[in-house]
Amino acid sequence: MRPEDIRFASRFDGISGSAIREIFKLLAVPGMISFAGGNPSPDSLPGETCGKLAEELLREKGRVLLQYGATEGYAPLRESLTDYIRESFGVEAGQDTILPTTGSTQGMDLLCKALIDPGDAVIIEDPTFLGNMQCMKLYQARLVPVPSDEEGMDTDALEEAIRKEHPKMIYVIPTFQNPTGRTLSLERRKRVAELAEKYGVVVAEDDPYRDLRYTGCALPSIKSFDKAGMVALLGSFSKVISPGLRVGFMNADPLILRKCTIGKQSTDVHTALLNQAIVDRYLRDGLLRPHISEICDMYREQMNAMLSDLANLSGVESYTRPEGGLFVFAQLREGMNAAELLLKCVEKKAAYVPGTHFYAYGGHENTFRLNFSMSSVKDIHRGMEILDSVFAAQ
Amino acid sequence: MRPEDIRFASRFDGISGSAIREIFKLLAVPGMISFAGGNPSPDSLPGETCGKLAEELLREKGRVLLQYGATEGYAPLRESLTDYIRESFGVEAGQDTILPTTGSTQGMDLLCKALIDPGDAVIIEDPTFLGNMQCMKLYQARLVPVPSDEEGMDTDALEEAIRKEHPKMIYVIPTFQNPTGRTLSLERRKRVAELAEKYGVVVAEDDPYRDLRYTGCALPSIKSFDKAGMVALLGSFSKVISPGLRVGFMNADPLILRKCTIGKQSTDVHTALLNQAIVDRYLRDGLLRPHISEICDMYREQMNAMLSDLANLSGVESYTRPEGGLFVFAQLREGMNAAELLLKCVEKKAAYVPGTHFYAYGGHENTFRLNFSMSSVKDIHRGMEILDSVFAAQ
Repeated sequence: MRPEDIRFASRFDGISGSAIREIFKLLAVPGMISFAGGNPSPDSLPGETCGKLAEELLREKGRVLLQYGATEGYAPLRESLTDYIRESFGVEAGQDTILPTTGSTQGMDLLCKALIDPGDAVIIEDPTFLGNMQCMKLYQARLVPVPSDEEGMDTDALEEAIRKEHPKMIYVIPTFQNPTGRTLSLERRKRVAELAEKYGVVVAEDDPYRDLRYTGCALPSIKSFDKAGMVALLGSFSKVISPGLRVGFMNADPLILRKCTIGKQSTDVHTALLNQAIVDRYLRDGLLRPHISEICDMYREQMNAMLSDLANLSGVESYTRPEGGLFVFAQLREGMNAAELLLKCVEKKAAYVPGTHFYAYGGHENTFRLNFSMSSVKDIHRGMEILDSVFAAQ
Repeated sequence: MRPEDIRFASRFDGISGSAIREIFKLLAVPGMISFAGGNPSPDSLPGETCGKLAEELLREKGRVLLQYGATEGYAPLRESLTDYIRESFGVEAGQDTILPTTGSTQGMDLLCKALIDPGDAVIIEDPTFLGNMQCMKLYQARLVPVPSDEEGMDTDALEEAIRKEHPKMIYVIPTFQNPTGRTLSLERRKRVAELAEKYGVVVAEDDPYRDLRYTGCALPSIKSFDKAGMVALLGSFSKVISPGLRVGFMNADPLILRKCTIGKQSTDVHTALLNQAIVDRYLRDGLLRPHISEICDMYREQMNAMLSDLANLSGVESYTRPEGGLFVFAQLREGMNAAELLLKCVEKKAAYVPGTHFYAYGGHENTFRLNFSMSSVKDIHRGMEILDSVFAAQ
C-alpha cells in the first residue's frame, strides 16, 4: 500500500488548501502593491534590539534558556505578563491564570482541544478570521455565524443563537476585528460576559490588535467583566513586537487553563524559552510602550491615507472606519464581484482579499478586505488608484 | 454557570496529571542526585555560540526572521536539512518531503492529527516514551503494545498485532530507545518498513537520540528502507543543540506531509524563524558535528560509569547495555517494587523513574529507568551507592 491509499483522519474531510493561499501565490510578482496580507510592516520589526537581547540573554542564561522548560511557561514572563494584562486589558490576572503560548494561534488550538467534540457548536462573528475558522473546522466544530454591525457582534442575535444552538464556545475578536476593523462596543462587551455566565458558554476573546489604536479611547476587555471565569482571553505579541518569534498568551480560569496546559504538553512541550525571554525583556525593560507608540504613528498615517482614498473609490457603497488595527472592510455595489475584479487588479499590480472567504458559508461576493500596514502612503495612493480604475470600468 | 460545570471535550476523559510530574516535584531538593530526568547536560548547551548567531542573524535578517514565515518552514533550513538527513539517516529527502516542526513532539502531534480517529489502533513498543503515549491518548487512539527484546520491537509479534488490530500507525523509537536504551536491529528495521507497505500502516519513526552514539556503528533508519512512502521520520535538535529552542523536523511522503502542514497552519502557523535560523547555521557552518563529538565524549564516560556500577547493584537481575542515548533500563528481583523503593532513595537524595509508567497498561513494578546525562561521574557513583544501599536492605 502507498500513501495515496491512506485513509486520513475524518477531521480532514472537506478541508482543502485555503483559497487565500492561492491568491497569495498570484501576488509574488515584483512591483505588486498588495493590500491582501495581514503582516506587520517590515519597518516595525525591531531586529537590532531583539538581536542584542538574544545575545545578552543566551550569554547570561544560556543554561536555562536552552534547556527544557515548564509547559506552564517561563517564570519571569508569567510575572511580567501580569502587569501587561492589567495595563492593556484591565484584568487582574493571577499567576495560575496565565499560560504563554506559541502565538495566540496556539491558544485557540488549545481551547478547541479542551472544549470541542465533533459536532459541537461554536458561535463566530460573520465575517471572521479565516485561520481560526480552519482551526475550529479541524476540531469538527459546527460553525454558527452571528451577524455584526458597526458595534461589532450583534448580542441580541448572539443570545438567540445561544438558546437555539447550545454552543460550547463563542469566538470573538472584539477590537479592530479581522477582517472588518470594527470594535465591539462597551455595552456589548458587558453583555457577552453576562451571556457566557448565564448560558455556560466559554468565550474565546481573541484580542491581538488592541494595542494598535490610532484614535479614540481603549475599551476594557470582555474578560474584565467576567465574574464567572467563563472568558478565555487570547493575546499576542505578533502585531506589536514580532510574529516570527511566535509568542502569545492565554489568560483564563485555572480549570480551563489546566486542560490547555495538558494539551500543550503533548503539542510542543513548551514555547521556546529564548522567545519568551525576549518578550519578557520587552515588557520588563519598558521597551514595549515606546515601540508601540512609534508603530502607531506610522500605521495611523497609512490608515488615514487609505480611508481618504476609499471615500472616493468607484463602486464602493460602504466601508468600515476603524480606530486601529490592520484592516478596512468595504462593500461594492450589489452585483459587483470582488473575486473577479481582483484578477483585473492583479494584472495591474494591486491586490486585496475578496471578503467572501471570511464568511463561514461564503456569499457576500461584493465585499473585500484591505490591509494598510504593509504599504507606504505613496503605494497606498497608487494601489487605490489602480483599484479605482478597475472598479470604475465595471 | 462556572468553569467547574464545563463539560470538557471527551478526549480528556481519563487523562490526568502525569504521575511522573508528581515524582519530579519530590526531587526539587538541594543535593538531590537525580537519574530521573531526560534532559541534556547543562554543560552541553551552547549558550555563547547561539547568542552570537542570534545577534548576527537578527541584525542582518531581522526583517525576515521577525516577520511571519511559511508554515512549510524557513527555506534555508529546509535546504540544510536535506544534507543532514542524508548524512545522519541515510535518506535522500526531497524538499517536498521536509517539514521543520516545533520540536519532534509537534511532529508526533501532527501525525496523530493527520491519521487518528477516536478508537483507531496504534501499535507501540512496550515500554515506550510517556509523552507521546499521552499525545496518542489525547487523539483517543487505542494503544496496542508489542513486546521488545535486546534487538528492539519484536517484529513477529508486530506482524501478528497488525493482522489482528488493523492499526493506523506504528510508533517506534528505533535508536537508544526511551526508556530502554535499546536499538532496533538492522534486520528488524527492514522488516518494519516491509510490514508498513504490506499492510498499509504508517510508521512514526521517532529518532531523536541517533546522533548520541558512544560506541558501535550507526544503523540506517527505517525510513531508508521505505520504498512505498509509508514511514514518517521524526527528528529533533533537542538532544544535540538545545531543547529550549524547540526545533525538530519531519521527513515524510508529500501526501502525509500536506495534511501535517495544514494541521500545523492552525496550530502555531510556523516554527519560530529565529530558532529555525540558528539550527540552520549550526548545520550550514559545520558546527553540529564537532559539537556532537564533544557531547558524546562527555556522555560516554557518564554512561560507562553508570553501567559499571549497575554490574554490582544489589537486587538488579538484568539491565540494558545501550550504545548511546540518555537512558539505561533495569529490572529488579521479582517482588521488589521500584516505586516504593524510590521513596526510600529520595529520602537519601537519589532518584530514578519507576519503569511501570512507561508501560501502556502498567505492571512491571520491578523495573526502573536511569538517566546519566544530568549527573557528573562523581555524582553517578554516589547516587548508585545510595541505590545500592536501599536495594540491599530489601
